[in-house]
Amino acid sequence: MDIKIYLNEKRQVVENALIRLMLKAEGPHIRHIEAMRYSLFAGGKRVRPILCLAAAEALQTDSEPFLPIACALECIHTYSLIHDDLPAMDNDDLRRGKPTNHIVYGEAEAILAGDGLLTMSFEFMSAPDLAKHIPGNTCLRIINVIARAAGPLGMVGGQSLDLAAEGRQISFDDLRRIHSCKTGALITASIQAGALAGGADEEQFDAFTRYGKNIGLAFQIVDDLLNVEGDPEELGKAAGSDAERQKATYPAIFGIEETRRRAHDAANSAIEALEPFGRHAEPLQALARYIITRKR
Amino acid sequence: MDIKIYLNEKRQVVENALIRLMLKAEGPHIRHIEAMRYSLFAGGKRVRPILCLAAAEALQTDSEPFLPIACALECIHTYSLIHDDLPAMDNDDLRRGKPTNHIVYGEAEAILAGDGLLTMSFEFMSAPDLAKHIPGNTCLRIINVIARAAGPLGMVGGQSLDLAAEGRQISFDDLRRIHSCKTGALITASIQAGALAGGADEEQFDAFTRYGKNIGLAFQIVDDLLNVEGDPEELGKAAGSDAERQKATYPAIFGIEETRRRAHDAANSAIEALEPFGRHAEPLQALARYIITRKR
Repeated sequence: MDIKIYLNEKRQVVENALIRLMLKAEGPHIRHIEAMRYSLFAGGKRVRPILCLAAAEALQTDSEPFLPIACALECIHTYSLIHDDLPAMDNDDLRRGKPTNHIVYGEAEAILAGDGLLTMSFEFMSAPDLAKHIPGNTCLRIINVIARAAGPLGMVGGQSLDLAAEGRQISFDDLRRIHSCKTGALITASIQAGALAGGADEEQFDAFTRYGKNIGLAFQIVDDLLNVEGDPEELGKAAGSDAERQKATYPAIFGIEETRRRAHDAANSAIEALEPFGRHAEPLQALARYIITRKR
Repeated sequence: MDIKIYLNEKRQVVENALIRLMLKAEGPHIRHIEAMRYSLFAGGKRVRPILCLAAAEALQTDSEPFLPIACALECIHTYSLIHDDLPAMDNDDLRRGKPTNHIVYGEAEAILAGDGLLTMSFEFMSAPDLAKHIPGNTCLRIINVIARAAGPLGMVGGQSLDLAAEGRQISFDDLRRIHSCKTGALITASIQAGALAGGADEEQFDAFTRYGKNIGLAFQIVDDLLNVEGDPEELGKAAGSDAERQKATYPAIFGIEETRRRAHDAANSAIEALEPFGRHAEPLQALARYIITRKR
Protein backbone atom coordinates (compact mmCIF):
# COMPACT_ATOMS: atom_id res chain seq x y z
CA MET A 1 0.00 0.00 0.00
CA ASP A 2 1.05 3.60 -0.60
CA ILE A 3 1.09 5.16 2.86
CA LYS A 4 1.31 8.70 1.47
CA ILE A 5 -1.94 8.31 -0.45
CA TYR A 6 -3.58 6.78 2.63
CA LEU A 7 -2.40 9.66 4.84
CA ASN A 8 -3.65 12.26 2.35
CA GLU A 9 -7.07 10.65 2.10
CA LYS A 10 -7.51 10.31 5.85
CA ARG A 11 -6.22 13.82 6.46
CA GLN A 12 -8.98 15.13 4.20
CA VAL A 13 -11.62 13.14 6.10
CA VAL A 14 -10.39 14.57 9.43
CA GLU A 15 -10.16 18.07 7.92
CA ASN A 16 -13.80 17.95 6.83
CA ALA A 17 -14.96 16.65 10.21
CA LEU A 18 -13.06 19.41 12.02
CA ILE A 19 -14.59 22.03 9.73
CA ARG A 20 -18.08 20.68 10.41
CA LEU A 21 -17.54 20.60 14.19
CA MET A 22 -16.04 24.08 14.32
CA LEU A 23 -18.82 25.55 12.17
CA LYS A 24 -21.21 24.47 14.92
CA ALA A 25 -18.99 26.00 17.65
CA GLU A 26 -20.64 28.99 19.26
CA GLY A 27 -20.22 31.30 22.20
CA PRO A 28 -20.71 34.88 23.36
CA HIS A 29 -17.41 36.05 21.83
CA ILE A 30 -16.79 35.42 18.15
CA ARG A 31 -13.10 36.39 18.36
CA HIS A 32 -12.55 33.54 20.83
CA ILE A 33 -14.01 31.05 18.34
CA GLU A 34 -11.85 32.61 15.59
CA ALA A 35 -8.70 32.24 17.72
CA MET A 36 -9.41 28.53 18.23
CA ARG A 37 -10.10 28.05 14.51
CA TYR A 38 -6.90 29.91 13.54
CA SER A 39 -4.61 27.37 15.22
CA LEU A 40 -6.78 24.36 14.51
CA PHE A 41 -6.57 25.07 10.78
CA ALA A 42 -2.92 26.16 10.61
CA GLY A 43 -1.72 23.13 8.66
CA GLY A 44 -1.50 20.26 11.13
CA LYS A 45 -0.68 16.78 9.77
CA ARG A 46 -3.54 15.25 11.82
CA VAL A 47 -1.31 12.33 12.90
CA ARG A 48 -3.22 11.60 16.14
CA PRO A 49 -6.70 11.54 14.56
CA ILE A 50 -5.42 9.31 11.74
CA LEU A 51 -3.84 6.86 14.21
CA CYS A 52 -7.16 6.73 16.08
CA LEU A 53 -9.21 6.01 12.96
CA ALA A 54 -6.69 3.48 11.62
CA ALA A 55 -6.79 1.55 14.90
CA ALA A 56 -10.59 1.27 14.73
CA GLU A 57 -10.31 0.15 11.10
CA ALA A 58 -7.76 -2.54 12.02
CA LEU A 59 -10.64 -4.09 13.98
CA GLN A 60 -12.79 -4.07 10.84
CA THR A 61 -15.16 -1.39 12.06
CA ASP A 62 -16.35 1.66 10.16
CA SER A 63 -14.37 4.53 11.71
CA GLU A 64 -16.66 7.32 10.46
CA PRO A 65 -18.82 7.50 13.65
CA PHE A 66 -15.66 7.91 15.72
CA LEU A 67 -14.58 11.15 14.01
CA PRO A 68 -15.57 13.27 17.06
CA ILE A 69 -12.94 11.38 19.10
CA ALA A 70 -10.36 11.88 16.36
CA CYS A 71 -11.19 15.61 16.26
CA ALA A 72 -10.99 15.83 20.06
CA LEU A 73 -7.43 14.46 19.90
CA GLU A 74 -6.47 17.15 17.39
CA CYS A 75 -8.03 19.85 19.62
CA ILE A 76 -5.93 18.63 22.56
CA HIS A 77 -2.78 18.56 20.41
CA THR A 78 -3.52 22.06 19.08
CA TYR A 79 -4.18 23.51 22.55
CA SER A 80 -0.83 22.11 23.72
CA LEU A 81 0.96 23.83 20.83
CA ILE A 82 -0.76 27.19 21.55
CA HIS A 83 0.23 27.07 25.22
CA ASP A 84 3.78 25.77 24.47
CA ASP A 85 4.37 28.72 22.13
CA LEU A 86 3.39 31.34 24.75
CA PRO A 87 6.01 33.92 25.83
CA ALA A 88 6.12 32.36 29.31
CA MET A 89 6.87 28.95 27.76
CA ASP A 90 8.92 28.51 24.55
CA ASN A 91 8.18 32.07 23.35
CA ASP A 92 7.83 31.14 19.67
CA ASP A 93 6.60 33.70 17.13
CA LEU A 94 6.20 31.27 14.27
CA ARG A 95 4.80 27.78 13.85
CA ARG A 96 4.74 26.09 10.48
CA GLY A 97 5.68 29.43 8.93
CA LYS A 98 2.63 31.24 10.36
CA PRO A 99 2.49 33.67 13.30
CA THR A 100 1.65 31.83 16.52
CA ASN A 101 -1.71 32.32 18.21
CA HIS A 102 -0.56 34.91 20.76
CA ILE A 103 1.13 36.98 18.03
CA VAL A 104 -2.20 37.27 16.21
CA TYR A 105 -4.70 37.33 19.08
CA GLY A 106 -2.62 38.48 22.06
CA GLU A 107 -1.41 36.48 25.02
CA ALA A 108 -4.64 36.52 27.04
CA GLU A 109 -6.79 35.28 24.16
CA ALA A 110 -4.18 32.64 23.26
CA ILE A 111 -4.37 31.21 26.78
CA LEU A 112 -8.18 31.17 26.52
CA ALA A 113 -8.13 29.68 23.01
CA GLY A 114 -6.07 26.80 24.41
CA ASP A 115 -8.39 26.42 27.41
CA GLY A 116 -11.39 26.48 25.08
CA LEU A 117 -9.99 23.80 22.75
CA LEU A 118 -9.10 21.51 25.66
CA THR A 119 -12.56 21.89 27.18
CA MET A 120 -14.33 21.42 23.83
CA SER A 121 -12.43 18.19 23.22
CA PHE A 122 -14.26 16.66 26.19
CA GLU A 123 -17.54 18.09 24.94
CA PHE A 124 -17.00 16.28 21.62
CA MET A 125 -16.16 12.97 23.33
CA SER A 126 -19.25 13.08 25.55
CA ALA A 127 -21.73 14.20 22.88
CA PRO A 128 -25.01 12.25 22.59
CA ASP A 129 -24.37 11.47 18.89
CA LEU A 130 -21.27 9.48 19.75
CA ALA A 131 -23.10 7.50 22.45
CA LYS A 132 -25.34 6.09 19.71
CA HIS A 133 -22.36 4.22 18.27
CA ILE A 134 -20.27 3.34 21.33
CA PRO A 135 -21.50 1.85 24.64
CA GLY A 136 -21.56 4.46 27.41
CA ASN A 137 -18.94 2.74 29.55
CA THR A 138 -16.60 2.38 26.57
CA CYS A 139 -16.97 6.10 25.86
CA LEU A 140 -16.10 6.83 29.48
CA ARG A 141 -13.02 4.65 29.27
CA ILE A 142 -11.90 6.47 26.11
CA ILE A 143 -12.31 9.83 27.89
CA ASN A 144 -10.39 8.46 30.87
CA VAL A 145 -7.52 7.12 28.77
CA ILE A 146 -7.19 10.42 26.89
CA ALA A 147 -7.52 12.61 30.02
CA ARG A 148 -4.80 10.63 31.79
CA ALA A 149 -2.49 10.82 28.76
CA ALA A 150 -3.07 14.57 28.35
CA GLY A 151 -2.83 15.51 32.05
CA PRO A 152 -0.22 15.65 34.84
CA LEU A 153 0.72 12.01 34.32
CA GLY A 154 1.32 12.55 30.59
CA MET A 155 1.53 15.55 28.28
CA VAL A 156 1.17 18.41 30.78
CA GLY A 157 3.47 16.67 33.28
CA GLY A 158 6.06 16.10 30.55
CA GLN A 159 5.94 19.74 29.47
CA SER A 160 6.36 20.82 33.09
CA LEU A 161 9.40 18.55 33.50
CA ASP A 162 10.82 19.78 30.19
CA LEU A 163 10.61 23.43 31.28
CA ALA A 164 12.26 22.59 34.60
CA ALA A 165 15.10 20.85 32.74
CA GLU A 166 15.85 23.84 30.50
CA GLY A 167 19.48 24.91 30.62
CA ARG A 168 20.41 21.99 32.87
CA GLN A 169 22.32 18.79 32.14
CA ILE A 170 19.81 15.98 32.37
CA SER A 171 20.29 12.23 32.26
CA PHE A 172 19.33 10.02 29.33
CA ASP A 173 16.59 8.47 31.46
CA ASP A 174 15.10 11.88 32.24
CA LEU A 175 15.18 12.84 28.58
CA ARG A 176 13.33 9.63 27.65
CA ARG A 177 10.80 10.32 30.40
CA ILE A 178 10.16 13.85 29.13
CA HIS A 179 9.67 12.62 25.56
CA SER A 180 7.50 9.68 26.47
CA CYS A 181 5.21 11.89 28.61
CA LYS A 182 5.20 14.97 26.41
CA THR A 183 4.54 13.31 23.05
CA GLY A 184 4.46 9.53 23.50
CA ALA A 185 1.50 9.44 25.90
CA LEU A 186 -1.02 11.18 23.61
CA ILE A 187 0.15 9.20 20.57
CA THR A 188 -0.39 5.93 22.46
CA ALA A 189 -3.75 7.18 23.77
CA SER A 190 -4.85 8.04 20.22
CA ILE A 191 -4.36 4.44 19.18
CA GLN A 192 -5.91 3.09 22.40
CA ALA A 193 -8.97 5.32 21.89
CA GLY A 194 -9.48 4.04 18.34
CA ALA A 195 -9.03 0.45 19.51
CA LEU A 196 -11.61 0.88 22.29
CA ALA A 197 -14.06 2.58 19.93
CA GLY A 198 -13.60 -0.30 17.50
CA GLY A 199 -14.52 -2.77 20.24
CA ALA A 200 -11.10 -4.19 21.15
CA ASP A 201 -11.01 -6.84 23.89
CA GLU A 202 -8.29 -6.61 26.56
CA GLU A 203 -5.77 -8.70 24.60
CA GLN A 204 -6.29 -6.62 21.47
CA PHE A 205 -6.09 -3.42 23.54
CA ASP A 206 -2.69 -4.53 24.86
CA ALA A 207 -1.46 -5.23 21.32
CA PHE A 208 -2.45 -1.71 20.21
CA THR A 209 -0.81 -0.26 23.31
CA ARG A 210 2.43 -2.09 22.43
CA TYR A 211 2.20 -0.71 18.89
CA GLY A 212 1.60 2.82 20.23
CA LYS A 213 4.49 2.80 22.67
CA ASN A 214 6.88 1.50 20.02
CA ILE A 215 5.98 4.01 17.31
CA GLY A 216 6.24 6.76 19.92
CA LEU A 217 9.73 5.53 20.74
CA ALA A 218 10.74 5.12 17.07
CA PHE A 219 9.53 8.65 16.41
CA GLN A 220 11.71 10.05 19.20
CA ILE A 221 14.81 8.10 18.19
CA VAL A 222 14.49 9.31 14.60
CA ASP A 223 14.12 12.88 15.90
CA ASP A 224 17.47 12.47 17.66
CA LEU A 225 19.06 11.01 14.51
CA LEU A 226 17.76 13.77 12.25
CA ASN A 227 19.18 16.31 14.64
CA VAL A 228 22.65 14.81 14.04
CA GLU A 229 22.59 13.88 10.38
CA GLY A 230 19.49 15.53 8.93
CA ASP A 231 19.63 17.75 5.87
CA PRO A 232 19.64 21.32 7.24
CA GLU A 233 17.55 22.48 4.30
CA GLU A 234 14.81 19.95 4.96
CA LEU A 235 15.05 20.27 8.74
CA GLY A 236 15.52 23.99 9.18
CA LYS A 237 18.50 25.24 11.18
CA ALA A 238 18.09 22.81 14.05
CA ALA A 239 20.56 20.13 12.82
CA GLY A 240 23.37 19.66 15.30
CA SER A 241 21.68 21.73 18.00
CA ASP A 242 21.43 18.78 20.41
CA ALA A 243 25.19 18.09 20.26
CA GLU A 244 25.95 21.80 20.75
CA ARG A 245 23.87 21.78 23.94
CA GLN A 246 25.50 18.46 25.00
CA LYS A 247 22.07 16.92 25.26
CA ALA A 248 21.92 13.28 26.32
CA THR A 249 20.48 11.83 23.10
CA TYR A 250 20.46 8.34 21.55
CA PRO A 251 23.30 9.09 19.09
CA ALA A 252 25.39 10.78 21.82
CA ILE A 253 25.15 7.70 24.01
CA PHE A 254 24.94 4.77 21.57
CA GLY A 255 26.50 6.14 18.37
CA ILE A 256 24.79 6.45 14.98
CA GLU A 257 24.79 2.77 13.96
CA GLU A 258 23.37 1.43 17.23
CA THR A 259 20.78 4.26 17.28
CA ARG A 260 19.64 3.34 13.76
CA ARG A 261 19.34 -0.29 14.83
CA ARG A 262 17.20 0.73 17.80
CA ALA A 263 14.85 2.79 15.63
CA HIS A 264 14.37 -0.24 13.35
CA ASP A 265 13.83 -2.51 16.36
CA ALA A 266 11.12 -0.23 17.73
CA ALA A 267 9.37 -0.02 14.34
CA ASN A 268 9.58 -3.81 13.95
CA SER A 269 8.16 -4.38 17.43
CA ALA A 270 5.28 -2.05 16.53
CA ILE A 271 4.63 -3.95 13.28
CA GLU A 272 4.80 -7.33 15.03
CA ALA A 273 2.31 -6.25 17.69
CA LEU A 274 -0.34 -5.87 14.99
CA GLU A 275 0.18 -9.26 13.29
CA PRO A 276 -3.05 -10.73 14.77
CA PHE A 277 -5.06 -8.15 12.80
CA GLY A 278 -3.77 -9.24 9.38
CA ARG A 279 -4.19 -6.98 6.36
CA HIS A 280 -6.60 -4.66 8.15
CA ALA A 281 -3.65 -3.37 10.16
CA GLU A 282 -1.60 -2.63 7.02
CA PRO A 283 -1.98 1.17 7.23
CA LEU A 284 -0.69 1.21 10.81
CA GLN A 285 2.22 -1.07 9.87
CA ALA A 286 3.09 1.08 6.86
CA LEU A 287 2.97 4.10 9.15
CA ALA A 288 5.56 2.49 11.46
CA ARG A 289 7.88 1.95 8.47
CA TYR A 290 7.24 5.48 7.25
CA ILE A 291 8.25 6.99 10.60
CA ILE A 292 11.80 5.57 10.49
CA THR A 293 12.42 6.61 6.88
CA ARG A 294 11.14 10.19 7.20
CA LYS A 295 13.58 13.01 6.45
CA ARG A 296 12.04 15.66 8.76
CA MET B 1 -32.13 24.76 59.38
CA ASP B 2 -28.84 26.59 60.00
CA ILE B 3 -27.29 27.05 56.60
CA LYS B 4 -23.91 28.04 58.02
CA ILE B 5 -23.59 24.74 59.92
CA TYR B 6 -24.67 22.86 56.79
CA LEU B 7 -22.10 24.69 54.64
CA ASN B 8 -19.31 24.02 57.14
CA GLU B 9 -20.11 20.32 57.33
CA LYS B 10 -20.30 19.89 53.57
CA ARG B 11 -17.16 21.93 53.04
CA GLN B 12 -15.28 19.50 55.26
CA VAL B 13 -16.60 16.52 53.31
CA VAL B 14 -15.45 18.10 50.02
CA GLU B 15 -12.11 19.07 51.57
CA ASN B 16 -11.41 15.49 52.62
CA ALA B 17 -12.39 14.12 49.23
CA LEU B 18 -10.10 16.62 47.47
CA ILE B 19 -7.23 15.68 49.79
CA ARG B 20 -7.77 11.97 49.04
CA LEU B 21 -7.91 12.55 45.27
CA MET B 22 -4.84 14.79 45.23
CA LEU B 23 -2.82 12.38 47.37
CA LYS B 24 -3.30 9.88 44.56
CA ALA B 25 -2.28 12.41 41.89
CA GLU B 26 1.02 11.49 40.31
CA GLY B 27 3.22 12.45 37.41
CA PRO B 28 6.83 12.81 36.29
CA HIS B 29 7.22 16.26 37.87
CA ILE B 30 6.41 16.67 41.55
CA ARG B 31 6.53 20.48 41.41
CA HIS B 32 3.65 20.41 38.90
CA ILE B 33 1.53 18.40 41.34
CA GLU B 34 2.53 20.82 44.13
CA ALA B 35 1.49 23.82 42.04
CA MET B 36 -1.96 22.31 41.47
CA ARG B 37 -2.32 21.48 45.16
CA TYR B 38 -1.24 24.99 46.19
CA SER B 39 -4.20 26.69 44.51
CA LEU B 40 -6.67 23.89 45.16
CA PHE B 41 -6.07 24.20 48.90
CA ALA B 42 -5.84 27.99 49.11
CA GLY B 43 -9.07 28.45 51.05
CA GLY B 44 -11.88 28.06 48.51
CA LYS B 45 -15.47 28.04 49.82
CA ARG B 46 -16.32 24.92 47.73
CA VAL B 47 -19.63 26.46 46.62
CA ARG B 48 -19.88 24.50 43.36
CA PRO B 49 -19.17 21.07 44.91
CA ILE B 50 -21.68 21.78 47.69
CA LEU B 51 -24.38 22.79 45.20
CA CYS B 52 -23.73 19.57 43.28
CA LEU B 53 -24.01 17.36 46.37
CA ALA B 54 -27.07 19.23 47.70
CA ALA B 55 -28.88 18.74 44.39
CA ALA B 56 -28.30 14.98 44.51
CA GLU B 57 -29.51 14.93 48.12
CA ALA B 58 -32.67 16.82 47.20
CA LEU B 59 -33.52 13.70 45.18
CA GLN B 60 -33.04 11.57 48.28
CA THR B 61 -29.89 9.88 47.08
CA ASP B 62 -26.67 9.39 49.03
CA SER B 63 -24.31 11.97 47.54
CA GLU B 64 -21.09 10.36 48.79
CA PRO B 65 -20.38 8.34 45.61
CA PHE B 66 -20.67 11.56 43.57
CA LEU B 67 -17.80 13.30 45.34
CA PRO B 68 -15.45 12.87 42.32
CA ILE B 69 -17.88 15.03 40.27
CA ALA B 70 -18.00 17.62 43.06
CA CYS B 71 -14.19 17.65 43.20
CA ALA B 72 -13.97 17.95 39.41
CA LEU B 73 -16.11 21.10 39.59
CA GLU B 74 -13.73 22.60 42.16
CA CYS B 75 -10.73 21.73 39.95
CA ILE B 76 -12.35 23.55 37.02
CA HIS B 77 -13.15 26.57 39.20
CA THR B 78 -9.58 26.62 40.58
CA TYR B 79 -7.99 26.35 37.13
CA SER B 80 -10.09 29.32 35.98
CA LEU B 81 -8.83 31.40 38.92
CA ILE B 82 -5.18 30.50 38.23
CA HIS B 83 -5.48 31.49 34.56
CA ASP B 84 -7.55 34.63 35.34
CA ASP B 85 -4.83 35.84 37.74
CA LEU B 86 -2.01 35.52 35.14
CA PRO B 87 -0.08 38.66 34.13
CA ALA B 88 -1.59 38.48 30.63
CA MET B 89 -5.10 38.44 32.13
CA ASP B 90 -6.02 40.28 35.36
CA ASN B 91 -2.41 40.35 36.61
CA ASP B 92 -3.27 39.74 40.27
CA ASP B 93 -0.51 39.06 42.82
CA LEU B 94 -2.82 38.08 45.65
CA ARG B 95 -5.93 35.94 45.99
CA ARG B 96 -7.60 35.46 49.36
CA GLY B 97 -4.57 37.08 50.95
CA LYS B 98 -2.11 34.55 49.52
CA PRO B 99 0.32 35.00 46.62
CA THR B 100 -1.24 33.81 43.36
CA ASN B 101 0.01 30.67 41.64
CA HIS B 102 2.31 32.41 39.14
CA ILE B 103 3.90 34.48 41.92
CA VAL B 104 4.90 31.27 43.70
CA TYR B 105 5.56 28.89 40.80
CA GLY B 106 6.24 31.22 37.87
CA GLU B 107 4.07 32.01 34.90
CA ALA B 108 4.85 28.88 32.84
CA GLU B 109 4.09 26.47 35.67
CA ALA B 110 0.91 28.42 36.56
CA ILE B 111 -0.38 27.96 33.01
CA LEU B 112 0.44 24.24 33.23
CA ALA B 113 -1.08 23.89 36.72
CA GLY B 114 -4.33 25.28 35.28
CA ASP B 115 -4.13 22.97 32.26
CA GLY B 116 -3.43 20.02 34.57
CA LEU B 117 -6.39 20.74 36.86
CA LEU B 118 -8.78 21.15 33.92
CA THR B 119 -7.61 17.88 32.37
CA MET B 120 -7.72 16.01 35.68
CA SER B 121 -11.30 17.11 36.27
CA PHE B 122 -12.34 15.05 33.25
CA GLU B 123 -10.22 12.14 34.48
CA PHE B 124 -12.16 12.22 37.77
CA MET B 125 -15.55 12.31 36.03
CA SER B 126 -14.71 9.36 33.76
CA ALA B 127 -13.11 7.16 36.43
CA PRO B 128 -14.25 3.51 36.65
CA ASP B 129 -15.20 3.91 40.35
CA LEU B 130 -17.82 6.49 39.49
CA ALA B 131 -19.32 4.30 36.76
CA LYS B 132 -20.21 1.77 39.45
CA HIS B 133 -22.73 4.23 40.89
CA ILE B 134 -24.01 6.11 37.84
CA PRO B 135 -25.15 4.62 34.50
CA GLY B 136 -22.55 5.20 31.76
CA ASN B 137 -24.80 7.39 29.63
CA THR B 138 -25.71 9.56 32.63
CA CYS B 139 -22.01 10.03 33.38
CA LEU B 140 -21.46 11.09 29.78
CA ARG B 141 -24.29 13.60 30.00
CA ILE B 142 -22.80 15.04 33.20
CA ILE B 143 -19.42 15.42 31.48
CA ASN B 144 -21.14 17.04 28.49
CA VAL B 145 -23.14 19.50 30.61
CA ILE B 146 -20.01 20.53 32.54
CA ALA B 147 -17.77 20.76 29.45
CA ARG B 148 -20.29 22.99 27.68
CA ALA B 149 -20.65 25.23 30.74
CA ALA B 150 -16.87 25.51 31.20
CA GLY B 151 -15.97 26.02 27.53
CA PRO B 152 -16.36 28.63 24.78
CA LEU B 153 -20.14 28.71 25.24
CA GLY B 154 -19.79 29.36 28.99
CA MET B 155 -16.96 30.21 31.34
CA VAL B 156 -14.05 30.54 28.88
CA GLY B 157 -16.24 32.43 26.39
CA GLY B 158 -17.40 34.79 29.14
CA GLN B 159 -13.85 35.47 30.26
CA SER B 160 -12.84 36.18 26.67
CA LEU B 161 -15.75 38.63 26.26
CA ASP B 162 -14.90 40.24 29.60
CA LEU B 163 -11.28 40.88 28.58
CA ALA B 164 -12.43 42.35 25.28
CA ALA B 165 -14.80 44.72 27.15
CA GLU B 166 -12.08 46.06 29.44
CA GLY B 167 -11.86 49.84 29.40
CA ARG B 168 -14.88 50.12 27.12
CA GLN B 169 -18.43 51.25 27.82
CA ILE B 170 -20.61 48.19 27.51
CA SER B 171 -24.37 47.81 27.57
CA PHE B 172 -26.33 46.32 30.46
CA ASP B 173 -27.21 43.33 28.25
CA ASP B 174 -23.53 42.66 27.51
CA LEU B 175 -22.66 42.89 31.20
CA ARG B 176 -25.39 40.36 32.05
CA ARG B 177 -24.11 38.09 29.28
CA ILE B 178 -20.53 38.25 30.58
CA HIS B 179 -21.66 37.42 34.13
CA SER B 180 -24.02 34.67 33.15
CA CYS B 181 -21.33 32.98 31.01
CA LYS B 182 -18.35 33.62 33.25
CA THR B 183 -19.86 32.55 36.58
CA GLY B 184 -23.53 31.62 36.07
CA ALA B 185 -22.92 28.77 33.63
CA LEU B 186 -20.68 26.66 35.89
CA ILE B 187 -22.94 27.31 38.93
CA THR B 188 -25.95 26.08 36.97
CA ALA B 189 -23.96 23.10 35.65
CA SER B 190 -22.93 22.16 39.20
CA ILE B 191 -26.57 21.80 40.18
CA GLN B 192 -27.48 20.06 36.93
CA ALA B 193 -24.63 17.57 37.43
CA GLY B 194 -25.81 16.73 40.96
CA ALA B 195 -29.38 16.38 39.74
CA LEU B 196 -28.36 14.01 36.93
CA ALA B 197 -26.17 11.96 39.29
CA GLY B 198 -29.12 11.73 41.68
CA GLY B 199 -31.28 10.30 38.91
CA ALA B 200 -33.41 13.35 37.99
CA ASP B 201 -35.98 12.88 35.23
CA GLU B 202 -36.33 15.61 32.58
CA GLU B 203 -38.96 17.56 34.52
CA GLN B 204 -36.86 17.49 37.69
CA PHE B 205 -33.76 18.43 35.68
CA ASP B 206 -35.60 21.51 34.38
CA ALA B 207 -36.60 22.50 37.93
CA PHE B 208 -32.96 22.31 39.09
CA THR B 209 -31.88 24.28 36.02
CA ARG B 210 -34.41 27.02 36.92
CA TYR B 211 -33.04 27.04 40.47
CA GLY B 212 -29.46 27.29 39.20
CA LYS B 213 -30.10 30.14 36.78
CA ASN B 214 -31.94 32.12 39.44
CA ILE B 215 -29.32 31.78 42.18
CA GLY B 216 -26.66 32.70 39.62
CA LEU B 217 -28.65 35.83 38.82
CA ALA B 218 -29.32 36.65 42.49
CA PHE B 219 -25.63 36.30 43.20
CA GLN B 220 -24.73 38.78 40.47
CA ILE B 221 -27.36 41.34 41.50
CA VAL B 222 -26.16 41.23 45.10
CA ASP B 223 -22.59 41.71 43.86
CA ASP B 224 -23.73 44.90 42.14
CA LEU B 225 -25.56 46.06 45.28
CA LEU B 226 -22.62 45.38 47.58
CA ASN B 227 -20.43 47.40 45.27
CA VAL B 228 -22.70 50.44 45.87
CA GLU B 229 -23.65 50.09 49.52
CA GLY B 230 -21.36 47.44 50.98
CA ASP B 231 -19.30 48.07 54.10
CA PRO B 232 -15.80 48.92 52.82
CA GLU B 233 -14.22 47.12 55.76
CA GLU B 234 -16.05 43.88 55.01
CA LEU B 235 -15.73 44.28 51.25
CA GLY B 236 -12.21 45.63 50.89
CA LYS B 237 -11.70 48.85 48.94
CA ALA B 238 -13.86 47.88 46.01
CA ALA B 239 -17.07 49.64 47.20
CA GLY B 240 -18.15 52.29 44.73
CA SER B 241 -15.70 51.18 42.06
CA ASP B 242 -18.47 50.29 39.58
CA ALA B 243 -20.00 53.79 39.78
CA GLU B 244 -16.57 55.39 39.36
CA ARG B 245 -16.04 53.41 36.18
CA GLN B 246 -19.61 54.23 35.07
CA LYS B 247 -20.33 50.54 34.69
CA ALA B 248 -23.81 49.57 33.55
CA THR B 249 -24.96 47.78 36.73
CA TYR B 250 -28.36 46.93 38.20
CA PRO B 251 -28.32 49.83 40.72
CA ALA B 252 -27.11 52.28 38.05
CA ILE B 253 -30.03 51.39 35.79
CA PHE B 254 -32.85 50.47 38.18
CA GLY B 255 -31.94 52.25 41.43
CA ILE B 256 -31.30 50.60 44.80
CA GLU B 257 -34.88 49.73 45.76
CA GLU B 258 -35.82 48.11 42.45
CA THR B 259 -32.48 46.25 42.42
CA ARG B 260 -33.15 44.85 45.90
CA ARG B 261 -36.60 43.76 44.76
CA ARG B 262 -35.08 41.97 41.77
CA ALA B 263 -32.57 40.11 43.95
CA HIS B 264 -35.43 38.92 46.16
CA ASP B 265 -37.49 37.94 43.13
CA ALA B 266 -34.62 35.82 41.76
CA ALA B 267 -34.07 34.11 45.13
CA ASN B 268 -37.80 33.45 45.45
CA SER B 269 -37.98 32.00 41.96
CA ALA B 270 -35.08 29.71 42.86
CA ILE B 271 -36.82 28.60 46.05
CA GLU B 272 -40.14 28.02 44.25
CA ALA B 273 -38.47 25.89 41.58
CA LEU B 274 -37.55 23.34 44.25
CA GLU B 275 -40.98 23.06 45.90
CA PRO B 276 -41.68 19.61 44.38
CA PHE B 277 -38.73 18.21 46.36
CA GLY B 278 -40.12 19.16 49.79
CA ARG B 279 -37.87 19.22 52.82
CA HIS B 280 -35.04 17.42 51.04
CA ALA B 281 -34.42 20.63 49.09
CA GLU B 282 -34.21 22.74 52.26
CA PRO B 283 -30.41 23.22 52.11
CA LEU B 284 -30.63 24.54 48.54
CA GLN B 285 -33.52 26.83 49.49
CA ALA B 286 -31.67 28.13 52.54
CA LEU B 287 -28.67 28.75 50.29
CA ALA B 288 -30.79 30.93 48.00
CA ARG B 289 -31.89 33.02 51.02
CA TYR B 290 -28.32 33.18 52.28
CA ILE B 291 -27.05 34.56 48.97
CA ILE B 292 -29.23 37.69 49.11
CA THR B 293 -28.40 38.47 52.75
CA ARG B 294 -24.63 38.05 52.49
CA LYS B 295 -22.43 41.04 53.31
CA ARG B 296 -19.46 40.18 51.08
